Amino acid sequence: MEKVLEGIRVLDLTRVLAGPFCTMMLGDLGALVIKIETPDKGDDFRATGPFIKGESVGFMSLNRNKKSITLNLQSEKGKEIFKKLVPHFDVVVENFRPGVMKKLGLEYKVLKELNPRIVYASVSGFGQTGPYAFKAAYDFIISGYSGIMSLCAHPGGEPTRIGIGLVDIVAGLFTALGILSALRAREIYGQGQMVDISMLDCMISLMENPIARYFVTGVNPQPPGNQHPFMAPMGVFPTQAGCIIIAVGNQTLWESFCRAIDREDLFSHPSFSTNTDRIKNLTELRAVLGEILRTKPLGEWMEIFDRGGIPCGPLNTVDKAINDPQVRHRNMILDVNHPVAGQIKLCGLPVKISGFSDTIGAPPPMIGEHTYSVLREFLGFKDQEIQKLKADQII
Amino acid sequence: MEKVLEGIRVLDLTRVLAGPFCTMMLGDLGALVIKIETPDKGDDFRATGPFIKGESVGFMSLNRNKKSITLNLQSEKGKEIFKKLVPHFDVVVENFRPGVMKKLGLEYKVLKELNPRIVYASVSGFGQTGPYAFKAAYDFIISGYSGIMSLCAHPGGEPTRIGIGLVDIVAGLFTALGILSALRAREIYGQGQMVDISMLDCMISLMENPIARYFVTGVNPQPPGNQHPFMAPMGVFPTQAGCIIIAVGNQTLWESFCRAIDREDLFSHPSFSTNTDRIKNLTELRAVLGEILRTKPLGEWMEIFDRGGIPCGPLNTVDKAINDPQVRHRNMILDVNHPVAGQIKLCGLPVKISGFSDTIGAPPPMIGEHTYSVLREFLGFKDQEIQKLKADQII
Repeated sequence: MEKVLEGIRVLDLTRVLAGPFCTMMLGDLGALVIKIETPDKGDDFRATGPFIKGESVGFMSLNRNKKSITLNLQSEKGKEIFKKLVPHFDVVVENFRPGVMKKLGLEYKVLKELNPRIVYASVSGFGQTGPYAFKAAYDFIISGYSGIMSLCAHPGGEPTRIGIGLVDIVAGLFTALGILSALRAREIYGQGQMVDISMLDCMISLMENPIARYFVTGVNPQPPGNQHPFMAPMGVFPTQAGCIIIAVGNQTLWESFCRAIDREDLFSHPSFSTNTDRIKNLTELRAVLGEILRTKPLGEWMEIFDRGGIPCGPLNTVDKAINDPQVRHRNMILDVNHPVAGQIKLCGLPVKISGFSDTIGAPPPMIGEHTYSVLREFLGFKDQEIQKLKADQII
Repeated sequence: MEKVLEGIRVLDLTRVLAGPFCTMMLGDLGALVIKIETPDKGDDFRATGPFIKGESVGFMSLNRNKKSITLNLQSEKGKEIFKKLVPHFDVVVENFRPGVMKKLGLEYKVLKELNPRIVYASVSGFGQTGPYAFKAAYDFIISGYSGIMSLCAHPGGEPTRIGIGLVDIVAGLFTALGILSALRAREIYGQGQMVDISMLDCMISLMENPIARYFVTGVNPQPPGNQHPFMAPMGVFPTQAGCIIIAVGNQTLWESFCRAIDREDLFSHPSFSTNTDRIKNLTELRAVLGEILRTKPLGEWMEIFDRGGIPCGPLNTVDKAINDPQVRHRNMILDVNHPVAGQIKLCGLPVKISGFSDTIGAPPPMIGEHTYSVLREFLGFKDQEIQKLKADQII
């Protein structure tokens, strides 16, 4: 079966997380992604554990459906080869700190001379412009700047980091969106553009609701802990065994919920009859419900609430999440055969489009696995030339 | 200046957050988005506070650059009008619970008969297929299923909800990605497709790293609190006034950091000389650094670390984030003039593409503001017909 982005060709200079997540999405959707790595060590993430037979699982998780070539962009010959590749591609993506591509002489201005149709996308901490453009950034730093960390805490408690590289990943998604938008515009206007994604901009965009609330109230939104700030009961409750999340989002659900827990008296109880009442008397409400919910284990409550149509779910650890029947049904955990690591499991593609495949075509590449074939296929290099490049440490 | 997606037409049936975030992105990028609302109350989010002069700031934050028409899809006449609109559009987006569109007789199968080129996108809690397809879901519930909440906590502490509707927003982003991919494929294959986005799938995709680590170690990843799990020092530290986030991501930065805090002895200290040592002796390291960092306020440390090229930043509250000079420079807070609420501030567009505008064209619409003009323009309805539809509560 075809892939939806088949035919799009991406030159991928990205490393670690934000850029590679973007190009993984493009590759998963069917674009040809040629990842360019430094000849010695390749993507920094290859050196980050844990490992399976020496292969970084973090790297493998982000780089399936890509081909890898090595190329030393510090060398003149390396730059020359890169420039020769550019006219064969639709997209160049990089997540260097702003200024690096210019120092290499490979910035957008240069590349568009070689290929006016190229879409050049960069993803960086603060973007290509503004007072912090050249400031160093990590996911963690941007979490702090954006304010999102101030909302991840228990009331009165210390903020906590979100346990994934959220800022990087979200910036990668926006970059993919920018690239597809620019490719679409290219069909109309005939020329490529530069896509300039800032991790901080992306997080500000995600913070739209607390920011909107701040502008009207003048009060900094507070972390909600594990209870929704405006709706109740919507939160985490311990059961006899395991925690349950309950989301009673409207008055009809409140009625069903009271019936499900066999406490129809609560529905018309003066302290709890409207959502406003329930938020006002939240401590009392949580105490009453806490006592009830502790009388049965998670599984029993889930059955009861599912039957009553009340949104509920477990507070899964990773093992539970990946073995969930819905996750498996949706092809979100896939087996991939890696030449060195063997049979590995990787997350599937969440963009499901009828008529197109959502499988993983190729395992994560070994460093430089496709250098020879790419140089031959795109630039017509002969074996002898390639061997010389290898000897000269250009590839 | 043009917008990058100018010419794309979207019929938007979405409400609340996941769908509206998707169509906001499409609208911000220049697509024509016609939001269809129920004649009585419209998008549920319109009724959610806080309000400015009766207008919901949460709603306004997500619905600029859209036109609003009212249409009662429960009525035969309403369905008929909707079906007449479909051939004029490129995209239909909805975030109903699976089954709702079928019950209305407006599912993909029906719409593609009317317009084989239509791209139909749905975003739901668990997707259109699988054992939970019809189960009720909220952002909070999916946070629990996906395992992400289990990673948002201080070590040993209770998990906390992420303080924004992250799951909804991320699903909205993946939906936009799916729509643009399907539109691109349409240019090649000539026909539309159905995009089926599940919030849970999207979160599993974001969890790729903890999932990959679980598969190799067999141990559930633990919440990192406010310290990076594998790199040190990378975490939050209190200063004399305010907290600072420091991200010493490699050995070169560790050297610069030791120099910046005037403790070059730490660089070669046997307990701290490599990242592995620093992670092993993290408590000791944090104690030593904690004492040093408490001697100056945040601003002074920021200057010192910025000078030394060491990634650092504040732990901003919302007010600090939106007033940050970088955020302002990047056009991420924009003034919009709303007919009722007056001058309001909204978050900007993080997808910056050269040659195209990143401004907000139109304020969030009043309910049904564009019903007359859309019915006239697309379907040639006469004023009298429109008045009858109004009288019959179809619009």
